[in-house]
Amino acid sequence: MSWLDLPAGTGFGLDNLPYGVFSTTGTAPRTGVAVGDAVLDLAAATGDDVHATRSLNAFMARGPRAWADLRAQLTEWFTDETHRGDVEPYLVPHDTVTMHLPVEVADYVDFYSSQDHAENLGRVFRPDSAPLPPNWKHLPIGYHGRAGTVRVSGTPVVRPSGQRRAPADDAPTFGPSQRLDIEAEVGFVVGVGSDLGTPVPLAALPEHVFGVCLVNDWSARDLQSWEYVPLGPFLGKSFLTSVSPWVVPLAALEAARVAPPARDVALLPYLDDTGEPWGLDLTLEVRLNGELVSCPPFGRMYWTPAQQLAHMTVNGASLRTGDLYASGTVSGPGKDQRGSFIELSWGGREPLALADGTTRTFLEDGDDVTITATAPGAAGGRISLGEVTGRVRHAR
Amino acid sequence: MSWLDLPAGTGFGLDNLPYGVFSTTGTAPRTGVAVGDAVLDLAAATGDDVHATRSLNAFMARGPRAWADLRAQLTEWFTDETHRGDVEPYLVPHDTVTMHLPVEVADYVDFYSSQDHAENLGRVFRPDSAPLPPNWKHLPIGYHGRAGTVRVSGTPVVRPSGQRRAPADDAPTFGPSQRLDIEAEVGFVVGVGSDLGTPVPLAALPEHVFGVCLVNDWSARDLQSWEYVPLGPFLGKSFLTSVSPWVVPLAALEAARVAPPARDVALLPYLDDTGEPWGLDLTLEVRLNGELVSCPPFGRMYWTPAQQLAHMTVNGASLRTGDLYASGTVSGPGKDQRGSFIELSWGGREPLALADGTTRTFLEDGDDVTITATAPGAAGGRISLGEVTGRVRHAR
Repeated sequence: MSWLDLPAGTGFGLDNLPYGVFSTTGTAPRTGVAVGDAVLDLAAATGDDVHATRSLNAFMARGPRAWADLRAQLTEWFTDETHRGDVEPYLVPHDTVTMHLPVEVADYVDFYSSQDHAENLGRVFRPDSAPLPPNWKHLPIGYHGRAGTVRVSGTPVVRPSGQRRAPADDAPTFGPSQRLDIEAEVGFVVGVGSDLGTPVPLAALPEHVFGVCLVNDWSARDLQSWEYVPLGPFLGKSFLTSVSPWVVPLAALEAARVAPPARDVALLPYLDDTGEPWGLDLTLEVRLNGELVSCPPFGRMYWTPAQQLAHMTVNGASLRTGDLYASGTVSGPGKDQRGSFIELSWGGREPLALADGTTRTFLEDGDDVTITATAPGAAGGRISLGEVTGRVRHAR
Repeated sequence: MSWLDLPAGTGFGLDNLPYGVFSTTGTAPRTGVAVGDAVLDLAAATGDDVHATRSLNAFMARGPRAWADLRAQLTEWFTDETHRGDVEPYLVPHDTVTMHLPVEVADYVDFYSSQDHAENLGRVFRPDSAPLPPNWKHLPIGYHGRAGTVRVSGTPVVRPSGQRRAPADDAPTFGPSQRLDIEAEVGFVVGVGSDLGTPVPLAALPEHVFGVCLVNDWSARDLQSWEYVPLGPFLGKSFLTSVSPWVVPLAALEAARVAPPARDVALLPYLDDTGEPWGLDLTLEVRLNGELVSCPPFGRMYWTPAQQLAHMTVNGASLRTGDLYASGTVSGPGKDQRGSFIELSWGGREPLALADGTTRTFLEDGDDVTITATAPGAAGGRISLGEVTGRVRHAR
């Protein structure tokens, strides 16, 4: 029990306690913790300068013991009435704060780990061949994205321009993307780095990963399809990647851990996660202009964040505090479980019917997309991962 | 003329003056300028705290006016005898310093802009089809690499392990790369960032790019070929990228500017560099264990750094101080102008004969690769871009 007046059904109870960076009018950004309808000002409440900074990086770099200690302290503060007088003055109403990018992103990696998503794209683009590339079930395919254009939820999505070539055309033309899309993803934030040359094994996930956020990897499908052979996505992705402002600590997701899907191809030892099930039973919801259009199930992801971490470092690549790696688009087998519009509209050929009578293939100017997610919490209810939202603006 | 006793034929004369980060025994890294056989301690000589830092980033962020001012001041100091007494005490013999990574790398992008290189790879891998992908002459193909594993010249190259699949095999195996390679490249360092949503036009190159370094983009060809479809290179590249310690300012390369090769495909306006010729007549040299094996000519690059910058930002992606973008492997039409061993050995099928009687396809443990480059300088001789070197160590 808590002396806090927590709203019924809040996703921000004591079993969540996510971290973010906030400011109020006239004050500098600093770190805080979301609890109920409030944000606890950590800089003020703890008096620790590590929290008087514009990102979580310095605190994350302290490592898992420090993360556990603060979480235990917060729990004690919020449950033991004797701390109320010391803590309550530092609670700020959530609706008065501005949220900032929670992490100074070092490297950003994006995976491709939903079998349903990968197969959907294969069927849309290559209907006559096998939907998955030959390597797909042997390794979590991933690539590096642009860290400098990772921004906090709410950042406007200016429609990107670039080269695109229609199948019937000889040469590309230049102009605003006509196939602007989303990718509903889950991101993992690295708190503790690793040494160059030393792979990070599956089991070391909790030693390195601080927490989880939501990611919308905005994608210009027409730019992407023209540019991506042979070196992968570049301008089709690099204009913006949005993340949710609250990073849910890994400790809050213990109750969400599930076994990943059965694998039908033998895993090499460094990816063999028997006994280390890091599947996570998160349910995402995608809303277009407020209307629920999809509920992608994260628990079906073929590759887990532990496998992604092990793969990303098996060649000796080092990690840094602030590295962000994302799951890739989360999709399920159902039509209403697809995490991108290219899947929801089947490559644009089957427009999505909306409640207002209009249809949609790809995003139009003015469209607002919001992704939310919840997970089973330790207290028996569900905890919230907050939201990542963005509105499309006309190309400049 | 200079009061400095510059060695005859030095590549580090007054028309070069590259910047780097150095330390001496027992002192902290700080920025310096190479001149002749010495390094001028900028922190001490200027008294400006911007130089008492572990990277060039703070100085680079000041912008082109500050870059020009300091270059003018250095020139005056080294040419006017009256400054000798004030400056000479801060010259440190080059052979007593340790060089560090010159730049805190923000995002790292690698292009693929040598037509000879791209065609060579096409012929090696797909002998029966067109050597260039259809987009190659329409845009400078590029992808994001791992910024966190960009290290300074001299960093040991631990042979990476990973998945690779031989053509005859059904499933991949795991082990040390058997096709470890180099890529001889030229890198461009961004000093001044740009705003999200605002493309940087070709002509703005000197407003953003601070200088040039050498890059060895170490590559594990077997890991790369198994992983790279459909999202591009990942672990085959991310274990290490080495850069030379001295960043040659753009101003030192005015005499090296040349027209790029004639283009046989019409360029879209944002890539049309008529009147903005940013080809650069750099001659690279690649040495294996001291033996010269290749002289890649940078002046033949199809896409210039100005076009790469314009392309990278045309979708609205922003730049940050410290962004590094590399040219891609530099190769020429001659056998002795190829910038990678996969080209020099034609996919491993034509081993390279070395002076000691041995042959080489890909790199062996203990091999030492050094890339150097020179360019025409303003004084009529050639300026040096220094070197990027690394020795291969046995896989862990």
